[in-house]
Amino acid sequence: MTKSRAAVVPSPSEPLVVEEYEIPELVSGAALMRVANAGVCGTDVHLWHGKLSGVPYPLIPGHEVVGTIEDVGPSPIRDLDGNLIKVGDRVTFHDVTKTCYSCWYCLIAKAPTKCPNREVYGITRDSTKWPHLIGGYAEYLYLTPGTHIIKIPDHVSFDGASAVGCAMPTAIHTVMRSPLGWGKNVAIQGAGPVGLMLAILAKVNGASTITSIDQAPNRLKIAQEFGATHTLNIRDTSLAERKDILKDIAGGHGPDIVYEATGSALAIPEGIELVREGGTYTICGQYTDSGPVEINPHLMNRKHLDIRTVWGSETTHVYQAIKTIADNYDRFPFEKLVTHRFSLDDAQKALETQEKQLSVKAVISPHGKE
Amino acid sequence: MTKSRAAVVPSPSEPLVVEEYEIPELVSGAALMRVANAGVCGTDVHLWHGKLSGVPYPLIPGHEVVGTIEDVGPSPIRDLDGNLIKVGDRVTFHDVTKTCYSCWYCLIAKAPTKCPNREVYGITRDSTKWPHLIGGYAEYLYLTPGTHIIKIPDHVSFDGASAVGCAMPTAIHTVMRSPLGWGKNVAIQGAGPVGLMLAILAKVNGASTITSIDQAPNRLKIAQEFGATHTLNIRDTSLAERKDILKDIAGGHGPDIVYEATGSALAIPEGIELVREGGTYTICGQYTDSGPVEINPHLMNRKHLDIRTVWGSETTHVYQAIKTIADNYDRFPFEKLVTHRFSLDDAQKALETQEKQLSVKAVISPHGKE
Amino acid sequence: MTKSRAAVVPSPSEPLVVEEYEIPELVSGAALMRVANAGVCGTDVHLWHGKLSGVPYPLIPGHEVVGTIEDVGPSPIRDLDGNLIKVGDRVTFHDVTKTCYSCWYCLIAKAPTKCPNREVYGITRDSTKWPHLIGGYAEYLYLTPGTHIIKIPDHVSFDGASAVGCAMPTAIHTVMRSPLGWGKNVAIQGAGPVGLMLAILAKVNGASTITSIDQAPNRLKIAQEFGATHTLNIRDTSLAERKDILKDIAGGHGPDIVYEATGSALAIPEGIELVREGGTYTICGQYTDSGPVEINPHLMNRKHLDIRTVWGSETTHVYQAIKTIADNYDRFPFEKLVTHRFSLDDAQKALETQEKQLSVKAVISPHGKE
Amino acid sequence: MTKSRAAVVPSPSEPLVVEEYEIPELVSGAALMRVANAGVCGTDVHLWHGKLSGVPYPLIPGHEVVGTIEDVGPSPIRDLDGNLIKVGDRVTFHDVTKTCYSCWYCLIAKAPTKCPNREVYGITRDSTKWPHLIGGYAEYLYLTPGTHIIKIPDHVSFDGASAVGCAMPTAIHTVMRSPLGWGKNVAIQGAGPVGLMLAILAKVNGASTITSIDQAPNRLKIAQEFGATHTLNIRDTSLAERKDILKDIAGGHGPDIVYEATGSALAIPEGIELVREGGTYTICGQYTDSGPVEINPHLMNRKHLDIRTVWGSETTHVYQAIKTIADNYDRFPFEKLVTHRFSLDDAQKALETQEKQLSVKAVISPHGKE
Repeated sequence: MTKSRAAVVPSPSEPLVVEEYEIPELVSGAALMRVANAGVCGTDVHLWHGKLSGVPYPLIPGHEVVGTIEDVGPSPIRDLDGNLIKVGDRVTFHDVTKTCYSCWYCLIAKAPTKCPNREVYGITRDSTKWPHLIGGYAEYLYLTPGTHIIKIPDHVSFDGASAVGCAMPTAIHTVMRSPLGWGKNVAIQGAGPVGLMLAILAKVNGASTITSIDQAPNRLKIAQEFGATHTLNIRDTSLAERKDILKDIAGGHGPDIVYEATGSALAIPEGIELVREGGTYTICGQYTDSGPVEINPHLMNRKHLDIRTVWGSETTHVYQAIKTIADNYDRFPFEKLVTHRFSLDDAQKALETQEKQLSVKAVISPHGKE
Repeated sequence: MTKSRAAVVPSPSEPLVVEEYEIPELVSGAALMRVANAGVCGTDVHLWHGKLSGVPYPLIPGHEVVGTIEDVGPSPIRDLDGNLIKVGDRVTFHDVTKTCYSCWYCLIAKAPTKCPNREVYGITRDSTKWPHLIGGYAEYLYLTPGTHIIKIPDHVSFDGASAVGCAMPTAIHTVMRSPLGWGKNVAIQGAGPVGLMLAILAKVNGASTITSIDQAPNRLKIAQEFGATHTLNIRDTSLAERKDILKDIAGGHGPDIVYEATGSALAIPEGIELVREGGTYTICGQYTDSGPVEINPHLMNRKHLDIRTVWGSETTHVYQAIKTIADNYDRFPFEKLVTHRFSLDDAQKALETQEKQLSVKAVISPHGKE
Repeated sequence: MTKSRAAVVPSPSEPLVVEEYEIPELVSGAALMRVANAGVCGTDVHLWHGKLSGVPYPLIPGHEVVGTIEDVGPSPIRDLDGNLIKVGDRVTFHDVTKTCYSCWYCLIAKAPTKCPNREVYGITRDSTKWPHLIGGYAEYLYLTPGTHIIKIPDHVSFDGASAVGCAMPTAIHTVMRSPLGWGKNVAIQGAGPVGLMLAILAKVNGASTITSIDQAPNRLKIAQEFGATHTLNIRDTSLAERKDILKDIAGGHGPDIVYEATGSALAIPEGIELVREGGTYTICGQYTDSGPVEINPHLMNRKHLDIRTVWGSETTHVYQAIKTIADNYDRFPFEKLVTHRFSLDDAQKALETQEKQLSVKAVISPHGKE
Repeated sequence: MTKSRAAVVPSPSEPLVVEEYEIPELVSGAALMRVANAGVCGTDVHLWHGKLSGVPYPLIPGHEVVGTIEDVGPSPIRDLDGNLIKVGDRVTFHDVTKTCYSCWYCLIAKAPTKCPNREVYGITRDSTKWPHLIGGYAEYLYLTPGTHIIKIPDHVSFDGASAVGCAMPTAIHTVMRSPLGWGKNVAIQGAGPVGLMLAILAKVNGASTITSIDQAPNRLKIAQEFGATHTLNIRDTSLAERKDILKDIAGGHGPDIVYEATGSALAIPEGIELVREGGTYTICGQYTDSGPVEINPHLMNRKHLDIRTVWGSETTHVYQAIKTIADNYDRFPFEKLVTHRFSLDDAQKALETQEKQLSVKAVISPHGKE
């Protein structure tokens, strides 16, 4: 095969079109991936609507990709564990196209997600330029030299690996910046993809109680399958009631950690109310600007809080995501999270499904289910 | 001597009166202190105006106290280092009247400043009840059993020890909850007592640059004597300018840590703007409720911030405060901070001086300068 | 009831005798406990043989005690969560008779297990002195004022709570000083009581692999029921083989954390060999002096290791132990660990059973099984 | 200029010879440095004697290099702060020739000094192969693409920057793995280059007391100029005496942190004795194998110690080293540490001077003092 079809956003808000690209020759360090699934992420919808700055068009979306190594360039390449990557290997990768680790943010501040040199598959690369196939909504994807590739264990299906999308690495980064541990009482604002992954991680880490908070009853129901020990619907309760209930759940003290994964600015003052005195409030859901909100600094200060915010994810979080799925594959029905599957030709429909929040996880499977 | 004069707040906002109390017999574990200086703290002014909840009246204010051991009860008592406390020892003490260390906050959450059982010298004890002399605005103070007493080294004068008040322990608690270390670029919002102590601590810890931010030129001038390498007057600069200047000062990245010590809610959104991406914002100045303020959660999240708030201080912070003064006594002119001295009869005037911010540190010296 | 029978060690190595003590009046802050089970600990055997320094005789052993509140002194007492302790409550307690939290180790160094003022139930108190009933090998135990009492949840039986003894708090302290977390590869030297608890805790915290190492096949078998995913018998393998096997188990890198819980000095150089480069070696099993051992400092240094040693346990570890059992009561068959039960009259036999390592956990149940 | 002279080790233990190399064309990302000083390090002596495994010969030694940018390759290059590197810039660099940050040690274990892909200037590169000029004992050095370059501030002379060699980055890595902070009591075993740097860092971080321990009186004297508040000569004191003296110095408790920087295995059991209970022992001096040594595991365990070992240094440590010198240039007489200067032709003599420990810091200045 020498060509690959791909679904392309021609320009902001224009319908996606399927185009065919010549597959470029593999340079030293590169590899070619046959795409099994490309996850459809909320960010893809934002890209489609032109809401992210610094994004070039035309663009092939898709930064959550699993598939099979179809070909390897002239020099051998290795995964993070030092194993050779071979044709036929089932893999995923960190969506940053190349490592920087030469700048102040990467090396001195140790905050590589703030590195100004990041380029991301399916988000920041123009499909008219080499190597074109740099987004997951395509039959084949060109893995550029330096991409951090991770093998998918045999017992994990492509759908199982796709289920967690980029939400799991984000949730892992979030958890790693919080004092999560066994016996903790945890509350999670939002039961969308990231909130769900936070529930899984809290369970895996032995949290004592895990309360998911949302307004969608179906989301809360799924949360219970994925770790939540309690749920609270914000439509059925007042803030004062939620605060009281959470205190009761958590031995009279309130949650040790509250995770925010909502996307709504209004969640912030509520989170500050809900977390116990001396507790930790960890915010990872404010990726888009939903405007300002009023908080009370005295309340924050009097409660002696730690507030952490979390931006993006590093290779280590993707590596740990695959490990987490693999280690807990019989504990949670990961595959069940993939509720919708689309062909390349239906990519437009996939984005619409995601936008309407009809799916838990939608994937584009260019070659059908694999 | 069997009696002690003391300045008493009869009830909220009433003028202070001097009364005489019988000195109670020393029970086992107790000691009597001849007060050298009682620091006049902003909290004393709030107490006088009845602004703190849960405070009984009449009340002898004064929780920042240095003096001499006049007498020790029937059983030997020791300081934190295990040394016997003897008559004639020059000492200070942690203002919490007795240790709890039996509750969930003290032992499990390890947040003893949130302990619900705290009783504080000069703040929460009614002077009509035993042992009456439980505030520093008095000739003698009754050290109840279990009080954590700390000796003042010989080379530190009473004024040197009083200079730092309760601001230094607060600042030490704040610093211990932040990643302060050598080479860091630090900005401090507010050059009042706590802001000044933060500058000293940043200097002692080898910070690379220390920028004090305030609106009072005389405070900024003092800050330069106590560690600040740079100052910014918020009356002379816009927020955008301050942000740019701080970036320049800090190698193009902005301050690694911003400390808030202002008491103004408006400082919070500014602090979030000033701190560098991936940096730490540490808030300790919001002790009284100055109302809500608007912040932008997306900005917080995108900057990948750590935000810590700090409430109160523990014995370890008072211990470390005395150690810090002693170790750096020739590096900073601590005594110079004591700008005003009052007799017991002028205690009312002392509060007014503090309220008008005419003093850096005012002390009440019931026996004159010692 | 006004008297209580108790098993007493008259002097080192003399057979235990049962004596009867008058139950002292309950002072303010005290309580009386009807003992359900007193765990028989290896330390009790050492006490019996007079191997611990600073231990007075005659002595009632027993520092791992669960039972029922029989009576409360004149003032109300509370558990750590702030709940009133009432007659009939099923409880356990931290075996330190009173809190110090007034010394340099407790407050400044934050190492309360090194506090020189510690007095321990069943170990450091002479039974001829008030309040006599200060060890668990007795029908009733006098809870002195300031003892940290913890309620046992209804769904946890006395045997379930006794199963973990003082091994679980020790293991919890150990785990809290190590970077244990989900996805870690863990090896545990020793499958005795502490090693077993470490396996449970590793499992509860979501460790990826947990390898128990011992020489007793029956211990290794029990370890598999309590969390171990792999076992290694040191009689069947060489050190080089163990190292290779552990590398294979842990993705080619070796265990991230090795816990030592053996009591043998020889374990130390082996542990340094087994842990991966950049890993953590946590030592808690060297409670008695088993002499010196040779290590290679260059190997330690080249491997860039963290080595932590852990002494004793704090109230928070006992609190967390009860929480851990309660939260995971359906996950592990805790009660099964209580393999032997003795009456007070058979206390001597209980010590001999423990000494011969015939039991997993032996308990003395003065009133029979409750 | 098209050629560069260089001092070469032809094969282990053979005398150094000066050879001339063609300067290779600068590829994209590369730069040419005119060497001002190449520090002579103890490692260079080991290289000369063939004591390090995996070292190719012939070899140009020199991994501590400062100099001036003579030329830049076809594409622009930047320093860690993002500033363009220009001809004429005075710079140093991290001695690892290229970043890996693609392996498990670099990204997952976050222990990049254990990365198996490291190649080091002046140590692991054969001078017969491109780009030949890959060690500092030469007129010019070829900075390969990806080298992490750091500018030297104007007020720091080449000698000032050379003074700290690779000892300062090692010491910084060591300090960052220890709880150093203001008010701590510190003891340092060894007053050689690393021990000296540790004294400087302890001072800069506001340590309360800093005790340098060595057997060479002249070294201890220099230590006093570079931060040590106390010194102990192991020839004049017994271990028991040193222990007592250190307890006295440190408020009766002993040093909070003991740093090991000796190279002698015998230092290890002594360090375990000297550090206070609950303290931290940080080992960075065991770079070469000086054989096994006996320790007592029970003593380690009973003291509840943290023991950290430290291997190599990362770019961030070199960056922080330059910052530390620059920030404290008027506080310590850094230039004074450069006690010997040699021409390329005298490189052999330089190694011998270092071997005999006649120098504090010897440098090779191929163009004379600059």
